[in-house]
Amino acid sequence: MPVPHLSTALHGPILDLENRIYNTKPLIEHWLRSKWREYSVPFYCSVDLRNSGFKLAPVDTNLFPGGFNNLNPEFIALCVQAVMTAVEKICPDAHSVLLIPENHTRNTFYLQNIASIRTIMQHAGLYVRIGTLLPEIKTATIFNLPDGQSITLEPIIRKNNKLSVENFDPCAVLLNNDLSNGVPEILQNLDQTILPPLHAGWATRRKSEHFKAYNTIADEFARLIDIDPWLINPYFASCGKINFREKKGEDCVANSTNKILGVIREKYREYSVKEDPFVIVKADSGTYGMGIMTVKDGAEVYQLNRKQRNKMAVVKEGMSVTNVLVQEGVYTFENINQAVAEPVIYMIDHFVVGGFYRVHTSRGIDENLNAPGMHFVPLSFEPDCLLPNNTKQQGLMPNRYYAYGVVARLALLAAALELQQTIH
Amino acid sequence: MPVPHLSTALHGPILDLENRIYNTKPLIEHWLRSKWREYSVPFYCSVDLRNSGFKLAPVDTNLFPGGFNNLNPEFIALCVQAVMTAVEKICPDAHSVLLIPENHTRNTFYLQNIASIRTIMQHAGLYVRIGTLLPEIKTATIFNLPDGQSITLEPIIRKNNKLSVENFDPCAVLLNNDLSNGVPEILQNLDQTILPPLHAGWATRRKSEHFKAYNTIADEFARLIDIDPWLINPYFASCGKINFREKKGEDCVANSTNKILGVIREKYREYSVKEDPFVIVKADSGTYGMGIMTVKDGAEVYQLNRKQRNKMAVVKEGMSVTNVLVQEGVYTFENINQAVAEPVIYMIDHFVVGGFYRVHTSRGIDENLNAPGMHFVPLSFEPDCLLPNNTKQQGLMPNRYYAYGVVARLALLAAALELQQTIH
Repeated sequence: MPVPHLSTALHGPILDLENRIYNTKPLIEHWLRSKWREYSVPFYCSVDLRNSGFKLAPVDTNLFPGGFNNLNPEFIALCVQAVMTAVEKICPDAHSVLLIPENHTRNTFYLQNIASIRTIMQHAGLYVRIGTLLPEIKTATIFNLPDGQSITLEPIIRKNNKLSVENFDPCAVLLNNDLSNGVPEILQNLDQTILPPLHAGWATRRKSEHFKAYNTIADEFARLIDIDPWLINPYFASCGKINFREKKGEDCVANSTNKILGVIREKYREYSVKEDPFVIVKADSGTYGMGIMTVKDGAEVYQLNRKQRNKMAVVKEGMSVTNVLVQEGVYTFENINQAVAEPVIYMIDHFVVGGFYRVHTSRGIDENLNAPGMHFVPLSFEPDCLLPNNTKQQGLMPNRYYAYGVVARLALLAAALELQQTIH
Repeated sequence: MPVPHLSTALHGPILDLENRIYNTKPLIEHWLRSKWREYSVPFYCSVDLRNSGFKLAPVDTNLFPGGFNNLNPEFIALCVQAVMTAVEKICPDAHSVLLIPENHTRNTFYLQNIASIRTIMQHAGLYVRIGTLLPEIKTATIFNLPDGQSITLEPIIRKNNKLSVENFDPCAVLLNNDLSNGVPEILQNLDQTILPPLHAGWATRRKSEHFKAYNTIADEFARLIDIDPWLINPYFASCGKINFREKKGEDCVANSTNKILGVIREKYREYSVKEDPFVIVKADSGTYGMGIMTVKDGAEVYQLNRKQRNKMAVVKEGMSVTNVLVQEGVYTFENINQAVAEPVIYMIDHFVVGGFYRVHTSRGIDENLNAPGMHFVPLSFEPDCLLPNNTKQQGLMPNRYYAYGVVARLALLAAALELQQTIH
């Protein structure tokens, strides 16, 4: 298992922030325990973080995480233990779970993620079968994976408002399909536990709702440990009625961009940060890093060429972008072998179970890294990493991992609050 | 981390048993989930197992486990996650825990165990201080440990029926002192959560009560997976009013021995086992492998020499043995580098978090290994070990680890039932 060599140019407030988080650990864990009692957390979650040296913040929270195959395999036991806890809480009577993946049959990396989730669930003592929404799969079909494993996709059967595959009686359905396309009829009005709930899908979910909930959580946390909430929270605004192709709604995006750039500039002055502020404009719903751009001046929004407009106009599966999130950009100052890196942290139930660095060799420190050409380096999670050593020099890796786990759990809490607020 | 090289002469029923356990995993885990809802399990627990090739059974269940320092340090994260779950369930409001160790200040291995427990608790986000019952420790005293760490023992203060050390306000007390000497007055009638409860201590606990509870659990489990309960359960009897020095009560021990040898002999015939049956006679309360002997014929009980009688007459801290357990001996057919080995499995809350092999180079396959001269080899818990691979050849290591974790959890359940039945 290669241990990522992480070189980070850290200076200024981040050391204070990390130390503050590390040194108030019992206070934080106590507060989190009370929150886990208050909220039902999603079954699983991954959070993209950015660490700018002066700021550590979540920039995306995924409730249908792919990439379990990128986690350090040595720590799959943590995932299994967390799944056991989740199942005890959510569906203790479940013997069997139907896993519904995305409709990607050619993306073998994605299918390896599905194989990893299946393996984790099986080790937690559940029968797992994989049901696909793809109409072309009419009988059980085996897909061989690059690592020698295989998975079998089976057509889903709906009967008495319950989903199954042939000769299987699942008590719960686990979605790894983010419903970007809307909620298919076959998933509607089921008498089965569905994890995560349908309204966590991108058919209804809005990033702006998530970050609104995150405002609440971040403010409370910042009061708890007595820090400026901005250090863990990016500014954002949202715009609706957008049509990039037809140049509709651009004013909102340009104005929000300039407004946010203005407040970032003030904060940068306050913290003596020398960098140029930037914002990220991205689709308010959806994933896969499509429909996303870096902007340093509102005027740029009016000057997009046709290619850029087209890129912004659609996300996964060709869905049109009509709502966007304008979010404070957070520089990543982390790099691995000269390539820009950002941490992605995975949680099952409320436990941090692993993570990796998303690394991109041809992207800048102010760009989205979730793009073609990225690769992954598992977080090593050595004892020293998961378990910070308080005798060690401050600012070293161990404290960073703990801080990452805390900020990721804040985003998880925000997701719980968001789902509670958006349930119909 | 050296991976133990385990050579095991396995033949006959054990493969069937291990396969049976592995192949009914979802059934077993589902049943265990229902049990975790029914019972409150002890905070932590270690279980000594014996694997005879034809039988896999717990022979001792420790509710104040030492030896956390012998666990594979790479998997301390599993301990931390399990402690987080335990704390959420038992004392979610706890910020601070007072850890009370055994009264051993010269046994640095034991103190390293205490340092390991402290570290795990701290990583779970608790403030931990160590209060000692030793009257000679009148101020905070630092003990340096061989691995470079140190621990500070502090005198316990009792005020308003709460225990503390100076400038500390613990909401819970974690005992790592098995109360062999009785429950000291300072621990009585406290208004604080005490983990595990006082009646789990050897002042009141009886192994025979534990194995009576284990009978219930083992029978139910055996019905669940349709096996002979004997394959996971050693016969036993208990005798009271014993005084080995004065040769009192020997008849009960001799008769029980012969009776148990008789029923083992029948079972050995049934399973075509060629070995000689034996029993282990040991103190019904207490630990540390004192007061323990191997017997192959009831007559031996009358023929003990003075040295043997003295050895049987006392356990830890000089307490007299008046009650004994006569327990079916289970051969260990496991060995590491030609030395006899037995697995010890550790649990926190209801999670298996690690274990090691207790290895003794100068003991036989029918002897107690918990004796001077033993050493420890951490279970490697590679992904393949914790997580059996169902495509691999049956009977290999992975299945063994899963089976060990299941039988250890049966003993844990028995401890939960025992504590429920013995509460006053």
